[in-house]
Amino acid sequence: MNTEIEKNVRVELGDRAYDILIGPGLIARAGREIAARLKGKRMAVITDEHVAPFYLAPLTESLAAEGIQTFPLVLPAGEKTKSFEHFMTVCDHVLAAKIERNDAVIALGGGVIGDLTGFAAGVVRRGTRFIQIPTSLLAQVDSSVGGKTGINSRHGKNLIGVFHQPDLVLADSDVLDTLSKREFRAGYAEVAKYGLIDKPDFFEWLEGNWQSVFAGGEARINAIAVSCQAKADVVAKDERENGLRALLNLGHTFGHALEAATQYDSARLVHGEGVSIGMVLAHQFSARMNLASPDLARRVEAHLKAVGLPVSMDQIPGELPPAEQLLEAITQDKKVKGGKLTFILTRGLGESFVADDVPASEVLSFLKEKLGS
Amino acid sequence: MNTEIEKNVRVELGDRAYDILIGPGLIARAGREIAARLKGKRMAVITDEHVAPFYLAPLTESLAAEGIQTFPLVLPAGEKTKSFEHFMTVCDHVLAAKIERNDAVIALGGGVIGDLTGFAAGVVRRGTRFIQIPTSLLAQVDSSVGGKTGINSRHGKNLIGVFHQPDLVLADSDVLDTLSKREFRAGYAEVAKYGLIDKPDFFEWLEGNWQSVFAGGEARINAIAVSCQAKADVVAKDERENGLRALLNLGHTFGHALEAATQYDSARLVHGEGVSIGMVLAHQFSARMNLASPDLARRVEAHLKAVGLPVSMDQIPGELPPAEQLLEAITQDKKVKGGKLTFILTRGLGESFVADDVPASEVLSFLKEKLGS
Ligand SMILES: NC(=O)c1ccc[n+]([C@@H]2O[C@H](COP(=O)([O-])OP(=O)(O)OC[C@H]3O[C@@H](n4cnc5c(N)ncnc54)[C@H](O)[C@@H]3O)[C@@H](O)[C@H]2O)c1
Ligand SMILES: NC(=O)c1ccc[n+]([C@@H]2O[C@H](COP(=O)([O-])OP(=O)(O)OC[C@H]3O[C@@H](n4cnc5c(N)ncnc54)[C@H](O)[C@@H]3O)[C@@H](O)[C@H]2O)c1
Ligand SMILES: [Zn+2]
Ligand SMILES: [Zn+2]
Repeated sequence: MNTEIEKNVRVELGDRAYDILIGPGLIARAGREIAARLKGKRMAVITDEHVAPFYLAPLTESLAAEGIQTFPLVLPAGEKTKSFEHFMTVCDHVLAAKIERNDAVIALGGGVIGDLTGFAAGVVRRGTRFIQIPTSLLAQVDSSVGGKTGINSRHGKNLIGVFHQPDLVLADSDVLDTLSKREFRAGYAEVAKYGLIDKPDFFEWLEGNWQSVFAGGEARINAIAVSCQAKADVVAKDERENGLRALLNLGHTFGHALEAATQYDSARLVHGEGVSIGMVLAHQFSARMNLASPDLARRVEAHLKAVGLPVSMDQIPGELPPAEQLLEAITQDKKVKGGKLTFILTRGLGESFVADDVPASEVLSFLKEKLGS
Repeated sequence: MNTEIEKNVRVELGDRAYDILIGPGLIARAGREIAARLKGKRMAVITDEHVAPFYLAPLTESLAAEGIQTFPLVLPAGEKTKSFEHFMTVCDHVLAAKIERNDAVIALGGGVIGDLTGFAAGVVRRGTRFIQIPTSLLAQVDSSVGGKTGINSRHGKNLIGVFHQPDLVLADSDVLDTLSKREFRAGYAEVAKYGLIDKPDFFEWLEGNWQSVFAGGEARINAIAVSCQAKADVVAKDERENGLRALLNLGHTFGHALEAATQYDSARLVHGEGVSIGMVLAHQFSARMNLASPDLARRVEAHLKAVGLPVSMDQIPGELPPAEQLLEAITQDKKVKGGKLTFILTRGLGESFVADDVPASEVLSFLKEKLGS
């Protein structure tokens, strides 16, 4: 059962505190872990067509062994599933399954399934119990922790949703073996991010051990656990994203602009790849503003490159829009006060901070330089 | 300006506390009251086709005078508007209007518009500021207070929603002059309810002054204010409806069963009418269980009858289903534990309590008797 290498991260949110279990074989053991915490005997399981063939049957069998009846719903895979239509389908499914007070809704999948299912769980009967079983690295280290849920609208990503904390998160480290290499790397960008925010030792450890993290086993579990703990610490202090939680956006301001510039076309760029390029840009821009050394930017770039992540805008296939348009995407994303932007910048390795007085003009010249325009 | 007769009820919810202003001319003064509390200059106004012709222009003019731009959306009137489709339309409208942190979404209408708009405000950007301008008596004394929002699903009423407290409630007592007599009476059933829950003096005052309440002026404002205060007190103690708030359901268990039995056909029965019959039944059933005197049931019946509300099931036009089916609707609505039901019953005038051990068999014989079957 390998429980000796299993990790438990507790998200401290008072009477809504919950456990994140991280380790191998957790899907096979899901029934026991859930039955130990919830009394309900009916669970809706929402998943997607890529994940279902591998993990739906093992999960429902594990729940059945505890006398828990499951009501599965398999949705198409991909970001487009975070839509109003699918949201309605999930709400309807949960109601049809007669999920009540002690029962729960389970998200089995990546961040798309987690965000969509969490939103539905947050509004059906004004809040239903919710269990996350994240199956992508990104979902395990980021989206399944913290209670942010939501869907996209034609006006932008993640614009409609609620904060709804799960009752339990089961991050089975084995399931990442079926995840594509590209998706694994994209999730890894978020792992590296936690080091760059405020954990220099962790970043250094990743530089030396990333191959073991990719290979699986204890190093992988450690990387997931450190990441979850980092996010859990921030969430416990700033549940509703009023201040501190902003640091989690390191690399994301540039990254989101690039995602928008590529029309969220995952063939060209997935979220974690945008974050990878964005983190390198944030470090380079910090150097340009004389906040940190250019050597640090080179070090960050070297590591992300080594794992196979893109680190500069010219690695994105296809044309990018001009710098002016990227800046516009950035100012759309962020509040602008008198020509000043808010960015997460850094003063050194693992010394990120919120800078709320970044001149838009500086960002523009920087982007022009980087685009070679 | 009549501010001398205006009332202010404060809903004490810590850092989410808010005011309910009750009085004449509040729509004309809405701009000033809102500008005094919120800095935003953009407001989406959601209303319905019955309310818009009377009050939309006065409201937008009042806001314009304070430099606030409005983005109105006029929806069809009626319970069917509390649907997924209209919810989507409202979310989209609020996003298109670019309502941001200090701006707000305003619900101008009855409980239907309030519940729908509040739900959208609760989820757009994971929570947008929200102002209630309730225009029906029911909305002024009940649905606009307490933050319960939501829509209906094919599985039942109000099954999907969130708790989202408003920043301000403006209950303009003048607007009730254009409300139909029938809708006014239906709202009055909820006013009487607060007396029957735990305010015997208020119920007595209503018995003597209900005609002035219907006529308008100070008595009406007083009745609304006492009702809002009663609900605000309960909400402050039990925001998320875990216990105490159950008392607000006096008359509603029977009432909901009758609404379901008449397929929510408002030509046959509107909510407040169901509550009126339900309150009489709850008092009669309390007498049958030897908890309260039959005289009290007769007194409650006499008052509701005097104002023109239906007080017995045979006043509902059309066929009603047999007692067994009504009981089934009741057990659907409530938790059943070992044949025991939870009801709000009473021990005397204004001495309601939660009874969680009511034998289903007793309810069934009572209903049979009442239906004469
Ligand atoms: N809520 C939050 O706090 C938060 C934080 C970050 C990202 N997000 C959201 O997360 C989403 C991205 O998450 P994601 O990267 O997991 O995307 P995803 O859910 O689309 O998963 C990526 C792909 O991997 C597949 N997949 C997942 N697990 C697998 C497995 N074990 N084996 C084989 N295939 C598997 C999926 O079917 C999908 O095709 C975005 O919508 C983003 O907005 C949310
Ligand atoms: N959120 C809560 O806590 C709560 C509590 C009780 C009821 N409710 C909900 O409230 C809804 C019922 O509210 P309602 O009775 O106000 O229904 P409603 O909103 O449908 O209004 C009743 C009718 O009166 C019209 N109207 C409203 N104000 C008017 C005015 N000033 N002049 C002329 N016409 C006017 C409306 O257009 C509608 O035709 C239900 O959906 C119920 O579920 C919610
Ligand atoms: Zn991210
Ligand atoms: Zn009611």
